[in-house]
Amino acid sequence: MKIAKLEAIPYSIPYRKPLKFASGEVEAAEHVLIRVTTDDGVTGIADTPPRPYTYGETQASIVAVVDQIFGPSLLGLDPLDREKIHAKLNRTVHNNTAKGGIDIAVWDIIGQLAGLPVSSMLGGFTDGMRVSHMLGFAESQKLLDEALRMRDQYGIDTFKLKVGRRPIGLDIEACHVLRDGLGQETEIYLDANRGWTANEAMEVLRQTDGLGLSLLEEPCDAKEAMSRKRLVEKSPIPVVGDESVPTAGDVSRELLAGGCNAISIKTARSGFTEAQRILSLCEGLGVDVVIGNQIDTQIGTLASVTFGSAFEATTRRAGELSNFLDMSDDLLADPLLIQDGRINAREVPGVGAAIDEEKLARYRQDQ
Amino acid sequence: MKIAKLEAIPYSIPYRKPLKFASGEVEAAEHVLIRVTTDDGVTGIADTPPRPYTYGETQASIVAVVDQIFGPSLLGLDPLDREKIHAKLNRTVHNNTAKGGIDIAVWDIIGQLAGLPVSSMLGGFTDGMRVSHMLGFAESQKLLDEALRMRDQYGIDTFKLKVGRRPIGLDIEACHVLRDGLGQETEIYLDANRGWTANEAMEVLRQTDGLGLSLLEEPCDAKEAMSRKRLVEKSPIPVVGDESVPTAGDVSRELLAGGCNAISIKTARSGFTEAQRILSLCEGLGVDVVIGNQIDTQIGTLASVTFGSAFEATTRRAGELSNFLDMSDDLLADPLLIQDGRINAREVPGVGAAIDEEKLARYRQDQ
Repeated sequence: MKIAKLEAIPYSIPYRKPLKFASGEVEAAEHVLIRVTTDDGVTGIADTPPRPYTYGETQASIVAVVDQIFGPSLLGLDPLDREKIHAKLNRTVHNNTAKGGIDIAVWDIIGQLAGLPVSSMLGGFTDGMRVSHMLGFAESQKLLDEALRMRDQYGIDTFKLKVGRRPIGLDIEACHVLRDGLGQETEIYLDANRGWTANEAMEVLRQTDGLGLSLLEEPCDAKEAMSRKRLVEKSPIPVVGDESVPTAGDVSRELLAGGCNAISIKTARSGFTEAQRILSLCEGLGVDVVIGNQIDTQIGTLASVTFGSAFEATTRRAGELSNFLDMSDDLLADPLLIQDGRINAREVPGVGAAIDEEKLARYRQDQ
Repeated sequence: MKIAKLEAIPYSIPYRKPLKFASGEVEAAEHVLIRVTTDDGVTGIADTPPRPYTYGETQASIVAVVDQIFGPSLLGLDPLDREKIHAKLNRTVHNNTAKGGIDIAVWDIIGQLAGLPVSSMLGGFTDGMRVSHMLGFAESQKLLDEALRMRDQYGIDTFKLKVGRRPIGLDIEACHVLRDGLGQETEIYLDANRGWTANEAMEVLRQTDGLGLSLLEEPCDAKEAMSRKRLVEKSPIPVVGDESVPTAGDVSRELLAGGCNAISIKTARSGFTEAQRILSLCEGLGVDVVIGNQIDTQIGTLASVTFGSAFEATTRRAGELSNFLDMSDDLLADPLLIQDGRINAREVPGVGAAIDEEKLARYRQDQ
């Protein structure tokens, strides 16, 4: 069996409301659907989110790198030869989501060939994941209202608050309002998306002391090497590396340099193969992981759940899996459901991300 | 004065012979010309080389990021407000040569406004740089022949040997042949472009001991964090970070983590502004720098000379400035000359990279 076709299809689906955070803002999901087809007609599917402010990729760069570099180098390879495929992909630097999408699509094919759910093939620890919901920039009372609504409607009781605003008092107040309104049992953690300096982040930690926040993600740019190392040493809670650690090599460098001591794993940028390497590295070093969200569609979220539910270490914490609720539509034929605060992986061969061809025809931008 | 237009013009000029090295191979210069024009009609010029195997950029990604992101965010800004321009550019991750090209074009405008050579504005240390010539993969005797020819023809007496081949004996033999053939006074240094493991590089250092090699560049992938740190600690000669350190932040992280102890500065990926930050960081820390080559055209090489000749620290070592000799043609109207082993910066306002419009029309790929 050989890879016969690699498609990178740009499409656009509007969000219900624009999403704001310290490193950027998005109004529509202008993503690229990756479709890998074998000479036997087996099709693998993945979704790639271009994030110029995180990985430097644009829709155009993803389409170009797939059409001009990855396509020609992968055609004719057996989808089972994943290490060979990655040796080819790794000749090109960065382009993380393009590579991640191809890897997931290849795994999707492998699962279908084997007649097994990919989640089982990866590890099969459990059938799904608890959901953590992300709260974007908003006035404190609105943040609390949204959290309470998510708890009532979906049973979600873990919240990631987007912070990194100035003055820092805005975010500190939001932490207090959320803790007061949600009670002591709810998990709340912070993601600054590099919005602060390391020293601002230190001050936020002091002024939220006692609130029981569980994690602080990307408080400042990892390039602030000395100050961030000091922050990581002093912080009472784990400091999570996210956009600073897209590959296993970045993870090892950042952990050894003292720039973080917990890791966000995102299948959108790592696929399953590199995500598994990262997970193994973190488990070996005794470092916590959290399954993150790249503002994923339902297709992307299903990939996260597929990976996250496969391992014990990735299910200890809730996964960030609810961003798709902000989308006005999706290409996934059979919609994802959040029930009792959980999303399940699919008990079908492959990843199970069958797409709605009519919707693809409606939203694609290349025809 | 305002930035009124940002152009990213893809073009292709064949090389005389394909250039081979451990991380890739190129047959034609498929670059992107960056042209920034103000509302007063002043034009700044820079050349950007897409290097997917080094920075993940393609011609298409450079054109897309300039047209879709950098253009819209920079139009209307005063070219003198460089920090404002960089704050905008830095919202997007990576895309190093696209950013570098814009910065150089902006400096070109600033120099013309001021009526001063940019090299003088940056520091004005001297009028040019000694040239180091890069020897690509070839049989040892051919490498020596090329080196001797470069010495005879251009007066060049510093050579960077591309290594990273397997078995390592190929490169070790080349080192011995070059030293024997060129004599003790010629500077020879190595660039493996991540072609080896750290331990292979250690073995090469043992087997070339006594040959007086001066530097070892990117012996292995910086992601081999532990082994590379060990190599750097043990190496008798400086280990130069190149593709691992495209920005000042990367430089500080890599130096502090012990992954290198000398730095290659390339204006193609850093522009002048970030290159100056990198240089200041290295001078402050007492770290050697070398002006590197991104397989630059004459336009790109002129930018390197403009920057490199401006400072004392960048002129201590010869700059890698001769790759353009392999091109069959160039867009630069007034050709660069290598004389007595040196290239001079231009004593004209700006950078002095006036282009030949007829050639641009011939080689551009977008019309």
